[in-house]
Amino acid sequence: MDISAVNALSYEDFVNTFGNVVEKCPVITAAVWSRRPFVSLNALEAAISDFIDELPESGKEGILRCHPDLAGRDLQRGTLTRESRQEQAGAGMDALTSGETERMARLNEDYKKRFGFPFVICARMNDKANILRQLSERCQNERAVERERGIEEVKKICRLRLQSLLLTDGANKL
Amino acid sequence: MDISAVNALSYEDFVNTFGNVVEKCPVITAAVWSRRPFVSLNALEAAISDFIDELPESGKEGILRCHPDLAGRDLQRGTLTRESRQEQAGAGMDALTSGETERMARLNEDYKKRFGFPFVICARMNDKANILRQLSERCQNERAVERERGIEEVKKICRLRLQSLLLTDGANKL
Repeated sequence: MDISAVNALSYEDFVNTFGNVVEKCPVITAAVWSRRPFVSLNALEAAISDFIDELPESGKEGILRCHPDLAGRDLQRGTLTRESRQEQAGAGMDALTSGETERMARLNEDYKKRFGFPFVICARMNDKANILRQLSERCQNERAVERERGIEEVKKICRLRLQSLLLTDGANKL
Repeated sequence: MDISAVNALSYEDFVNTFGNVVEKCPVITAAVWSRRPFVSLNALEAAISDFIDELPESGKEGILRCHPDLAGRDLQRGTLTRESRQEQAGAGMDALTSGETERMARLNEDYKKRFGFPFVICARMNDKANILRQLSERCQNERAVERERGIEEVKKICRLRLQSLLLTDGANKL
């Protein structure tokens, strides 16, 4: 699917295709449709990034709060979005030892208690050991630092989801 | 459920309970959690309203685009959210004559083509005849007028969903 095909989509098809590039935030995709036509995939990605940057701090925290815990309840219950399931599985989050599961759960709880939003990291760019290390380290940061750091990770996840959709699924759906 | 119980909710329980007071926009609920404690239901409603008002125009259009058509494909396929299904059924949208269905579909398409977002109206405050009349009339408005008008309707829907949750379902869920 090239960018001219993307620009020709109705808002309904656009949201159906790209609605989860920011996890559980179809409103962001739906908003960005207003800014078409896009000259390239990078321009679409930049429009999403700009929209996020213009949100108040509470809005950025809201985006983080729409993300599931890594190796958390949604993975165990099978209620992750398709994208999250694939990403968490790719990073080995569905194959932790019981010790690792316990450690991850404890660190996730510590993180959420401290910051009021979950730990977000681009799982496709990290392996299990790296995720556990960063979760442990990032618990020590200041709240404002973590909010911005989490949003950086949201943008990395978004970029990879966009690329996947344009290269494969998106083309099949249209 | 009184407001002190609401204020005591984790962000996860808060979003699970109130995540669809603005249709398919859990990020708004998740954002507003940052502004707790709320002194009253009205204060919670005002926080949601303020968050919406502070969005850029594209963001407001994005909210409208997360709403299903009235008597549209989602109703026919059974893919409406629980709240929308109840609201549309209450206004008789699931019991239109074939002539009414056809007229509604044509007017919805005209509206979306003209404005780039769907016709949004608080179904619980209107009956079938009134909805058809308003859909026909509002197609004639300017785009900016309809954007603001749609958002006013989103806020009415939100108020009624909040009230329902606090009086009934919310109490049962907690």
